[in-house]
Amino acid sequence: MGGDFAPHNVVCGALDALREAGDRLDVLLVGPEQAIRTELATTDHAGLSFQIVNATEVIDMHDTATAGLKAKKDSSIAVGIAAHREGRADAFISAGHSGAVMSTATLTLGRIGGVSRPTIGTFLPSEFGPCLVLDAGANVDCKPQNLYEFAVMGSIFSSMMLDIKSPTVGLLSIGEEPSKGNDLTLEAHKLLAGSSLNFIGNIEGRDILSGKARVVVCDGFVGNIVLKLAESFLDLLRNRLRAYASASLRKRIWTGMMHGTLRRMLKDFDYQEQGGVPLLGINGVVIIGHGKSTAKAVKNMVFRAEEMARININGHIQKALSSTQ
Amino acid sequence: MGGDFAPHNVVCGALDALREAGDRLDVLLVGPEQAIRTELATTDHAGLSFQIVNATEVIDMHDTATAGLKAKKDSSIAVGIAAHREGRADAFISAGHSGAVMSTATLTLGRIGGVSRPTIGTFLPSEFGPCLVLDAGANVDCKPQNLYEFAVMGSIFSSMMLDIKSPTVGLLSIGEEPSKGNDLTLEAHKLLAGSSLNFIGNIEGRDILSGKARVVVCDGFVGNIVLKLAESFLDLLRNRLRAYASASLRKRIWTGMMHGTLRRMLKDFDYQEQGGVPLLGINGVVIIGHGKSTAKAVKNMVFRAEEMARININGHIQKALSSTQ
Repeated sequence: MGGDFAPHNVVCGALDALREAGDRLDVLLVGPEQAIRTELATTDHAGLSFQIVNATEVIDMHDTATAGLKAKKDSSIAVGIAAHREGRADAFISAGHSGAVMSTATLTLGRIGGVSRPTIGTFLPSEFGPCLVLDAGANVDCKPQNLYEFAVMGSIFSSMMLDIKSPTVGLLSIGEEPSKGNDLTLEAHKLLAGSSLNFIGNIEGRDILSGKARVVVCDGFVGNIVLKLAESFLDLLRNRLRAYASASLRKRIWTGMMHGTLRRMLKDFDYQEQGGVPLLGINGVVIIGHGKSTAKAVKNMVFRAEEMARININGHIQKALSSTQ
Repeated sequence: MGGDFAPHNVVCGALDALREAGDRLDVLLVGPEQAIRTELATTDHAGLSFQIVNATEVIDMHDTATAGLKAKKDSSIAVGIAAHREGRADAFISAGHSGAVMSTATLTLGRIGGVSRPTIGTFLPSEFGPCLVLDAGANVDCKPQNLYEFAVMGSIFSSMMLDIKSPTVGLLSIGEEPSKGNDLTLEAHKLLAGSSLNFIGNIEGRDILSGKARVVVCDGFVGNIVLKLAESFLDLLRNRLRAYASASLRKRIWTGMMHGTLRRMLKDFDYQEQGGVPLLGINGVVIIGHGKSTAKAVKNMVFRAEEMARININGHIQKALSSTQ
């Protein structure tokens, strides 16, 4: 029931994943059984391997992040994560209330040994492909050790899931010199410089989109602002085009032509093309999607979750963080 | 001698300001006399009202922020600010080492009563015209009171210099509710909500470019990252256009046509069009320009400084902050 277009986009995306994956996947569709059955009636699903798991409650955007643990224990988020904990599912994905997914997952599944705080990473476009920024808003006030752990988890994810060999790690700050930054980054810099990560030092706001580092670490306050500012560039560009187009018919035709090219050129700015972001550091595989996730985004989230579970990202995180303690 | 194109752009910009302003302005050109005279020899300056003030040293980008106070007391920055303090000039502008300008100005001129920390504001484009973001990097670790003072100074500047009546003030955070944010913003929210400012509450990263608030306050760590990320958007767009153009002759012609339209459409992203940013909270008028300031930018900085001095921004800041203490 997660996201603005549930259950339609979620069910369609899950079925599309099953169609593409063949025997490799089974899917549990978690939510109010009747709503799911109504959605299923509109589409051909013969031969696809899924089950319905009934969950009678729905966490909406007005609920608090702890709703899945307290007021709405029979929500799709709580029931789905419980199924994951009990081993009935190898991973959980949701396009619903991200705060509720995060807190329910963290408290139900627990943290990986050596991880002080789980983190949500997000992908920003760069000159050299997606750049993973952690933390994207889960941890507002951080300690240096948290940032170090984000860097370790981000490096493992980027190397195993994005096939980036020895990913570059940058510490987001306000000057390249190690002496530049705030109290948090000055200390975090020391931890990162002394680690076995491919740490390239401080990077600045301008270096994110240029792709200077493939993994960017910062506290969740900064990361969330960066993420939302970057997303809004596309809106600004769209509004400017619209304003320009409104001046004359000639300009309308001209911007119509430009629009298609620009959209292709900046496709990677569009979060709907991304398949959701991982919650890293918990004993489980959880992917959180944008509330506006399309069926295609949901399908990609399913594949990403399946891969994360199969290649055992968490085992690598545990090994890396327990050995450095 | 400030900036990457000194003394050429600085001298040309100052002379252009004199040509436009007529009798209203006198300019002191501060720097190595011979370099200034060499530059002046290349241009017609008959009848323009300026003087040369000799300063033998030059602070470059490798110098520390305190160079103007210690190692290079005869630099154009130190000598120019001293002339301002002594009343020989009503304002000081520089496109040079911004850290050196800031620390030299703060320590030489002193703070306005009621101001705990001077701040540098910066302008970002928005749907409704320039949005003033403070602090842009001068104050990395801030206290709630600092953010409140930035809001007061930013409101006065926006209202008096940009003619915005009762400018909206937003607190940059990671959620609209007053309960969302980090330790700093949660406390700052209370101060702002209890003030007489036109405080609209928390705003998010996506709200900056949409123009939800005309004055945005945050600590200098966040502000500097926001500023540099926003500036880099234009670079990314330029690189994407270039990559697209390289695919074929047809695409090269097409992007060449798009380029002009986009440049006009996003002109306000280009810092060279801006005339520099104010250092607010000091007993004086100081404008800091980008290192790559064009002659036009320098000219605009001169006019902005003249206006700030003439309408007595500082008197209003002092009155506002001493009355709320």
